[in-house]
Formats: sequence, C-alpha cells, structure tokens
Amino acid sequence: MDRLDPPSRVLLGPGPSDVPPRVLRALAAPTVGHLDPYYIEVMEDVRARLRACFRTESPLTFPVSATGMAGMEACLANLLEPGDAMLVVVNGVFGGRMVEVATRLGAVVHRLEVPWGETVESGAVERALETHPDVTCVGIVHAETSTGAHQPLEGLGELVHAHGALLVVDAVTSFTGAPLEVDVWGIDACYTGSQKCLSAPPGLSPVTFSARAVARMEARSAPVRSWYLDTSLLRAYWEGEGGRRSYHHTAPVNMTYALREALQLVMEEGLEARFARHRRHHAALRAGLEALGLRYVPARSLPMLNCVRVPDGIDEAAARRRLLSEWGIEIGGGLGPFAGKAWRIGLMGASCTRRNVDLALVALASVMERPAREALDAADAAS
Amino acid sequence: MDRLDPPSRVLLGPGPSDVPPRVLRALAAPTVGHLDPYYIEVMEDVRARLRACFRTESPLTFPVSATGMAGMEACLANLLEPGDAMLVVVNGVFGGRMVEVATRLGAVVHRLEVPWGETVESGAVERALETHPDVTCVGIVHAETSTGAHQPLEGLGELVHAHGALLVVDAVTSFTGAPLEVDVWGIDACYTGSQKCLSAPPGLSPVTFSARAVARMEARSAPVRSWYLDTSLLRAYWEGEGGRRSYHHTAPVNMTYALREALQLVMEEGLEARFARHRRHHAALRAGLEALGLRYVPARSLPMLNCVRVPDGIDEAAARRRLLSEWGIEIGGGLGPFAGKAWRIGLMGASCTRRNVDLALVALASVMERPAREALDAADAAS
Repeated sequence: MDRLDPPSRVLLGPGPSDVPPRVLRALAAPTVGHLDPYYIEVMEDVRARLRACFRTESPLTFPVSATGMAGMEACLANLLEPGDAMLVVVNGVFGGRMVEVATRLGAVVHRLEVPWGETVESGAVERALETHPDVTCVGIVHAETSTGAHQPLEGLGELVHAHGALLVVDAVTSFTGAPLEVDVWGIDACYTGSQKCLSAPPGLSPVTFSARAVARMEARSAPVRSWYLDTSLLRAYWEGEGGRRSYHHTAPVNMTYALREALQLVMEEGLEARFARHRRHHAALRAGLEALGLRYVPARSLPMLNCVRVPDGIDEAAARRRLLSEWGIEIGGGLGPFAGKAWRIGLMGASCTRRNVDLALVALASVMERPAREALDAADAAS
Repeated sequence: MDRLDPPSRVLLGPGPSDVPPRVLRALAAPTVGHLDPYYIEVMEDVRARLRACFRTESPLTFPVSATGMAGMEACLANLLEPGDAMLVVVNGVFGGRMVEVATRLGAVVHRLEVPWGETVESGAVERALETHPDVTCVGIVHAETSTGAHQPLEGLGELVHAHGALLVVDAVTSFTGAPLEVDVWGIDACYTGSQKCLSAPPGLSPVTFSARAVARMEARSAPVRSWYLDTSLLRAYWEGEGGRRSYHHTAPVNMTYALREALQLVMEEGLEARFARHRRHHAALRAGLEALGLRYVPARSLPMLNCVRVPDGIDEAAARRRLLSEWGIEIGGGLGPFAGKAWRIGLMGASCTRRNVDLALVALASVMERPAREALDAADAAS
C-alpha cells in the first residue's frame, strides 16, 4: 500500500455507519493529554450527554476505551463473580455472545432460547426466573443486530428486580436510534457502541450502571478479573475522587472528541426527532424492499436495521460484492442460520436519509436485475 | 461546553506525544466497514509494518483494539492460566501493574523488587528463577515510564527460556524510539501503545507473540477468561482462516488509519535514524536540564523520557500548571515515591525535535525563575 486513501463508501450495513464531516473534523482536532484540564471538561461533557441519551441519572455513565464488545464484557465482568448464575435470552448472535462472555467469566449460564428473528415475552422470562431462582443477572439484547429483531423491554426491569436479579441490556444498535429508557425501564447495566446510530467511528463503548449495579459491584467478594475493565478503577478517572482524577489508562483522546461531537449532533436534532427520522426512513425502505419481493426476517423489526430474506436464485454474497464494487454501498450478509440467506440493511444515524433509502432500492434492484420503479414509488408513498 | 475546540498543546509529557498533521488527516479519512476489502488491505499493511518495527517475523502481530494497558492485559491473559507462577521485575508503576493484572488473572506472582529508577541485572533474574523453578512467565518493563529507567534486555530471553519460561516485555514507551529486537532478544510477548514514540493518538495497543507463545496458548487447558482479548479469536480476524476473515468485534477503523500513517512515517524516516534522533535530542535536553541544576532519577535514562528531581523550594505541581497555562506545554509529574518530587519530560516521536528541546528549557527556566542562557548553551554544545 503506497498511500492511505480509503474509498468513499455509503455505509448501509450493520455498522459502522457514515460518519458526518463534523465528527471527522472533531476526531482530527489537536490531541491533548488525558489529564489536561481541557480533556477533563470534554469527559464531563461526554458523561452528561451520554446520560441524556441513555435517559438516566446514573453518575456511572462513561465510554469504555474499546469497542462495543468490550462494553458487553465490562458490564458482565463487573457484575458477575465466578459461580454466579445468569439468565441470557438468546435469539441471535449477540445473546449467544453474552453466554460466551459470561461463561468465560466463570458464571453458570442458563439460556432462554428463542427462535432467531423472534423476541421474548415477559412471561417466558418470568418462568425461567422461577425455574432458576439463584439467577443474579438477566441479559437481553434490545436490538439484535444479527436478525433485526426489536425486543420490547418495558416492565422487564420490575420483573427481574422482583426476583432479586439485575437487568443487563445490549443496546449497541438501538442507542439514539430508537427509544431506550434506562431509568424508566429499570435497566441496571447497558452498553452500546460509537459506530451505529451515533455515527462516530468505531472504537468506544458507552456504558451506564444503575445504583443497584454499583451496590452489587461494591459488595463483590473478589476484584474484577479484568484490570482494564474494572469500574472501581475507572470511576477514579471518569468521576474523580476529592476533585482529583487518577490516571488509569491513557484515554483515547481523539475518539472522545468524535464521540462528543456525535452526541452534540444528537442533542441538536433532539432524541424524539431522531427516533422519528429512523422510523420514517425505515417505513419507506420497508415498503420499497417489500415491493422488490423481499420479506423481513423478524416479525418486530428494528427501524435502523432491516434484515430480509434473499430470494431463491440470487447469490447473496455476489450481490453484496457488486453493491460494494459497482455502487460503493456496504450492506451486511446474514449470520448463523441466516448465513447466505439474508441481507442486513442498516439505516443508522447519519446513514439514515431519504437519499440513502432510494439509493439502496435502486442499487438492490440493479443487482437483483429487477426494475426499481415500483420500489421507489412504494417508498415514496410510505414516507 | 458550547463547541469542541481543543487548545494547541506541545506534548512533552509521558505520552501522548504530538500527533503530526499527516496522521491526523489519516485519522479523519472516510470510515469504511471493518470487513471491507480496503480495510483488510490496511490491516495487512499495518501488520507488516508492525513486524518491521518490532523486528520480528511473528505472524501474530497486530494492534489490540484498546489502549496500551489492554495490550498488557492481552499478553498476560493469553499466556497465564489460574495457578501459573509468574516472575515480575518491579522497579516502577508499570511493573507493579503487571503484578496486579497477573494476580487478578489468578496467577501466583513473585515480585523481583528493584529500587525505583534502577534496572535489574540478569544475575538477579537468574537467581529468582532458581528460587522459583515453577515460573512460566517473566515480565519486565523495557522503558519504565514512571522513572525513565532504560532496562537492557539483551540475553534475557535465552536465560528465561533456559528455565522453561516465556519473556513478556512492556515496550510501551520505547517502541520506535529506541532499539527493540523482539526476535533477536527472544521476547515472547511484547506490547506497546500508539501514543508514545509512534505519535498516533492514544487508543491502540500493538502486540506481538512468538511461536513459543502461540504454542503455550494453544496448549491452554481452559479458554482465555477475556473474550475480547482472546488471541485465538482475534487471529481469525487479523490473520484470517482459509482466506476468510471472521468478524470478532467492529475494529476501530479510523484509529487503524492513523496507526498505519504513523508507521509509514517511521518507515520513511528509518528506524535507525529515528533512534539516533531520539538520542541526539535527549543529549541536548539532558545537558540543558543539568545546566539548570536538575538531576536525573535513573542511572540509565531512556532517551524519550527524562525523569528529573525537582529542586527544593520549587512547587512541582504549580510549575507544571504554569507550563500548561502560560506556555501550553504539558510535562508529567512524578508517580509513587516520586510524586511531587520529579518531573517527567518526554521527547517522543513527533515531539522529539530540537525546537522542543529549547522550548522546554526556556519554559522550565522561566517557571523555575532562573536564566535560560546557560541551559541553551549547554544544549547547543551537546547536540
């Protein structure tokens, strides 16, 4: 490689999404030290904005200095001790990953299996909690990126708390793209990523922990096995103690700038308006995709991630390669049981525009060798 | 905070260092997907350049998607199993952190204590290995950022291997600033950071593992407790299997661009020329600091980090605050036993220039309320 010169893509996959120029400019702002008074102002600003977007008052809200999967691991590593029992709802890749991460941490994991593409009813969670009364944590995915299923969470916190457990939620794909009410829904630990509906580059994983979660962590019998992800150490840096910040690791300063700017863009648009934008363009895309003969995998689809079955006779990987090489458009393929059988089309954050809906429809029609007109008309009528 | 508008600092602390404009431009290049063919080219390019800078042929060489401390944790988490014995040379903060990280991973850690600021002789390591014949890993810090001590490593690998152990080296501060010969010195695992002599922003931690280390990892009796840092999973993404890359996490794409560009700058300058530049400006700074009456803490100082005792009668924290507010210059304070008693002045990567040597001397003289002329003359004579 002679020189770095990345192509200009239209990112309509499962993430990352297109990063707005303002966020890229923030990313490239001058690096300051990780204990510089200016950086501490940025940290405080980011924490306040994250709380607003998580809809929480919890002080322990900050970005983990790594990608979304490290956010998952941070939540589980701090809340679980070896031998603890955890219940995980598994209806796709990311529920499966919670099982894997928790098992490696030494937890005894009970899987509540739901067919991929479906969501779980609270009655099923209740029965599982009655079967396993020793469960201390319940893990569930709000936005299952592998299937596009949108899990309702209202009331779940109350149910989980009534059984003496904590509720851990994966909101990587839904954060700032669909309603997420951490405090109202009684979520005790929630993690997300910078590169989905926030439209910052990948690399940071915002997390939040409730007072219940903090009490659980403070009552641990042994330190968290991961030094890097131990919130008791991270708090001394992110929250400070007695007005002093303790050095823990050298924070990813420029990525924090980008996260700050992306959060600022969310604030300027307003959360409700942002959710409405994601719903509106989803409706248009959905009408267009269905006009092209594509059927959705989940009964309850996320607005920002559209997972559709690939019709017989179409080579899904070849179609994606053509989208990338001829159109510069990235979409995702299926995972697990949907490998080779589904496409995952994201409309996240800055990628979620009417222009991209039509572009996706025209390009898909082209690689499917079908006329685009009907799909465009359907999108138009639905938007 | 109304708008993000970071001040322009001169970063002469223990890291981060000043990020060159070319690296900031690379950082802000268009984001592509983490499985985009273009990104895979960037990954291959980064791996090749990292191998060149680590001076290794090891295929398992890649950046961990988190900061330097996660690189330390990745090395230890993959090489240690609960109950394994590790010997750690402790002569500063980062040796102490290896002890802490390894202990949390369930290892039985033997500390080889050396006074802060000093380095260890290989005879002492040999005696410790004879005392603890069950040791499977020896950890040592090449460049102790907390004291400025430069640990010689030649011959250590041979000694450690003769006792059936692996050698783990912290090269966070020395990488690309002073000679580091991973293969020749028999280093089995080595980690560094993007933000020191590489002068990329903080956020990535390049690591390399020898064939011996890979064999050890493949013989593990249980999976690595950290899913995020498990090299057996990371290999499937960074090296691929059968021409396919497996998704593990969403890689920090833009940070990888910056790392690539920073590595390219190292290649253009040449490693030897870069080391010589660090030695040359260190000699000038040292002569100037000594002319100002400042005495070095370590007997064997790193070129890129200059740790000096603060003379009696000077408030070290107040002086640093003045350097930052009046001069826009960041230097570091002392840590541990040197808290309040030392300054740590970095000349790393892009920050390592003759201009910055004189600037540091003039600014330090000013906040110490001493004339600068003698220091500048001494620097001039030594450079």
